[in-house]
Amino acid sequence: MATTNLDYASLFAKNAPEGATSWGGFPTYNFVGGHNNPETMPVEDFVESSARVLRQEGQNLATYNMKSGPQGYTGLRGFLVEKLAHYRGLRAPDENVLITSGSNQGIELINEVLLEPGDTVIAEFFTYQGVVGRWRKLQVNVVGIPLDEDGMRMDALASTLADLRSNGVRPKFIYTIPTLQNPTGTVLSMERRHEMLRLSREYGVPIFEDECYADLIWEGEWPPAICGLDDSHHVLHIGSFSKSLSPALRLGYVVAPWQVLSRMLACKTDGGTGALGQMVVADFFQNHYEEHMDKLRTSLKVRLQALADALVEHFGSSVEFQAPRGGMFLWVKFPPEVDTLKLAGPALEAGIAYNPGPEWAVEPDAARNYLRLCYALPSEQLIRDGIAKLAQVFRREAGIP
Amino acid sequence: MATTNLDYASLFAKNAPEGATSWGGFPTYNFVGGHNNPETMPVEDFVESSARVLRQEGQNLATYNMKSGPQGYTGLRGFLVEKLAHYRGLRAPDENVLITSGSNQGIELINEVLLEPGDTVIAEFFTYQGVVGRWRKLQVNVVGIPLDEDGMRMDALASTLADLRSNGVRPKFIYTIPTLQNPTGTVLSMERRHEMLRLSREYGVPIFEDECYADLIWEGEWPPAICGLDDSHHVLHIGSFSKSLSPALRLGYVVAPWQVLSRMLACKTDGGTGALGQMVVADFFQNHYEEHMDKLRTSLKVRLQALADALVEHFGSSVEFQAPRGGMFLWVKFPPEVDTLKLAGPALEAGIAYNPGPEWAVEPDAARNYLRLCYALPSEQLIRDGIAKLAQVFRREAGIP
Repeated sequence: MATTNLDYASLFAKNAPEGATSWGGFPTYNFVGGHNNPETMPVEDFVESSARVLRQEGQNLATYNMKSGPQGYTGLRGFLVEKLAHYRGLRAPDENVLITSGSNQGIELINEVLLEPGDTVIAEFFTYQGVVGRWRKLQVNVVGIPLDEDGMRMDALASTLADLRSNGVRPKFIYTIPTLQNPTGTVLSMERRHEMLRLSREYGVPIFEDECYADLIWEGEWPPAICGLDDSHHVLHIGSFSKSLSPALRLGYVVAPWQVLSRMLACKTDGGTGALGQMVVADFFQNHYEEHMDKLRTSLKVRLQALADALVEHFGSSVEFQAPRGGMFLWVKFPPEVDTLKLAGPALEAGIAYNPGPEWAVEPDAARNYLRLCYALPSEQLIRDGIAKLAQVFRREAGIP
Repeated sequence: MATTNLDYASLFAKNAPEGATSWGGFPTYNFVGGHNNPETMPVEDFVESSARVLRQEGQNLATYNMKSGPQGYTGLRGFLVEKLAHYRGLRAPDENVLITSGSNQGIELINEVLLEPGDTVIAEFFTYQGVVGRWRKLQVNVVGIPLDEDGMRMDALASTLADLRSNGVRPKFIYTIPTLQNPTGTVLSMERRHEMLRLSREYGVPIFEDECYADLIWEGEWPPAICGLDDSHHVLHIGSFSKSLSPALRLGYVVAPWQVLSRMLACKTDGGTGALGQMVVADFFQNHYEEHMDKLRTSLKVRLQALADALVEHFGSSVEFQAPRGGMFLWVKFPPEVDTLKLAGPALEAGIAYNPGPEWAVEPDAARNYLRLCYALPSEQLIRDGIAKLAQVFRREAGIP
């Protein structure tokens, strides 16, 4: 007997999102999403690391968290303790380190511990799409602070904190991506790092420091993490292995005072972060961190140059951008009449995907003539061809260039 | 200048949980948590699979989801499609399969899509702790259905559904672990599988089938998954690689109609499930599934026998249990005056960890004289010694045996 299919429409929770569309594969000219450079994937070193760690500790995969406990594989936490001390000036014992399933999980756990509807947070005016989307879903107010070439402006932060206080509002945190800011690529100056800490202490508002791109500086000074300048528990720090190595592995980390970390741990009900990736990355980076980062940064620098050249060649004076000192994306400004959200559809039809500016801003409309281009995945040839095609689409649809 | 540490107490969200305690390592006699048997971890086969898949597809680790899209690595979905058809009678195309970070993520995604506070769900009266805890947090009412040796009783399910309907309540789903039920180890009979489906259709209430132990039957008939008997989208099916292989890898899966799966996908904001584990498991199981399962089931059967013998030897007539046809845990009943929750502390002081019954029941108090013993991790010797010691603790603290 034929039975009618159950229609779930009447069973869905009121807040359930619309269904996702099924995945159609990558576009030819893929400038979105923070993918990395496939040519720098250390395949043979991974083979070697996998064999070594599996033979050393493979049996422990039979237990939850591999006898390392819920904060993550001790080998990877050990690597992080050393890396953060050496490269980021951040001295934290491994009890204060939590391995997460991507740095997004770190963001979600910090949000879960601190935020409730109606709360206020502060962020750079242009900032990471994923974090703004999460705050909106949590019904949290976001106050954007303008940036200049040295990152978040401290005069604006000071006056915002003062205004909020005079209105009886204590923000839950100041979210910042100080080192290779997403999307502007700026690096917060040393002076401003100290000033942000001073303001954090004055107002009793912690800093939520997201350093997921910090390994990718290829020239100029490396200011230490703000967390490294702090001795008073004012900074919650997160980072990622997605940008320094591989986003598919889904590995990130948090450094935080135990008072906060222990609550994040209580919220982390995922049974632990996948162990095999942790083991292999720990072994690989213990042996090859500097060598790999040099290779990756060199390759990214070449691709950025190709992108900058192609933009100048094909868009001429219609584009403005500040080439960053590292990272994997470029923030590009067009004349005010350009609407990058509207142009995204026609661009995709031509095989080109980019991140429209409005998705990377606290006030979407203020970024309607911006877009973000990630240049790590496409080859130099694809970058050149993609930008040439993008110029054709913009010319046809918007009269630019 | 010394600065006072920031106290986060005034910043925490009202619903933030208490902090977790820091991890103290495993107890000597570890009968909790669904760990697996370390001796069956296929270390050399994993080394071989890792090398093969990394050389074939390692470059794709540079992209989110490895060019497989957000539903998970195509190789692993392909293996699942074949495994489910061959061993569980469940024919589903890979578009209806979603790889999750452990089967707990499948539970969370189904909850998120379907549940809101005040909703009602139905479950076996004794059931998985993790799922009941999540429902309580979501303020969902749970109605427990009694079990006998053939699993959930259909007469009780039918009368519960009728009662709820007469009170105007349409439950969101019937959650069941039909095959090696957790914690009772029962296997729902074929007749009851058909009857549950019939009731599901009659009342328009989907079945949420959790088959995370279904690979572990070592004797008797293997009834197909309820999802395999259904042609009308009435069953949401989840499973796991934690029990068949390794809990540390954090891999599970969902099979569901696209109407539901597409919304789960929209809720899955983790950037994908870690790829390396998916790749290695896909390759390993494509080549060694049957061989590995035979070895694992044989080892578990030996450990169950050691546990049953030790319980009889040391507790005599003070224990009642029904040895299951598979799985990795035993549900043990003590005389009514025994309070397993109270005894858990003294047991742990003696190095023995078990799961108190109240944590595995819809109505905790009804299981106060039960406990669950997982026997996959400890060796036969540790099982014998641990049960001997447990009997000493029970005798001293409760006069039993």
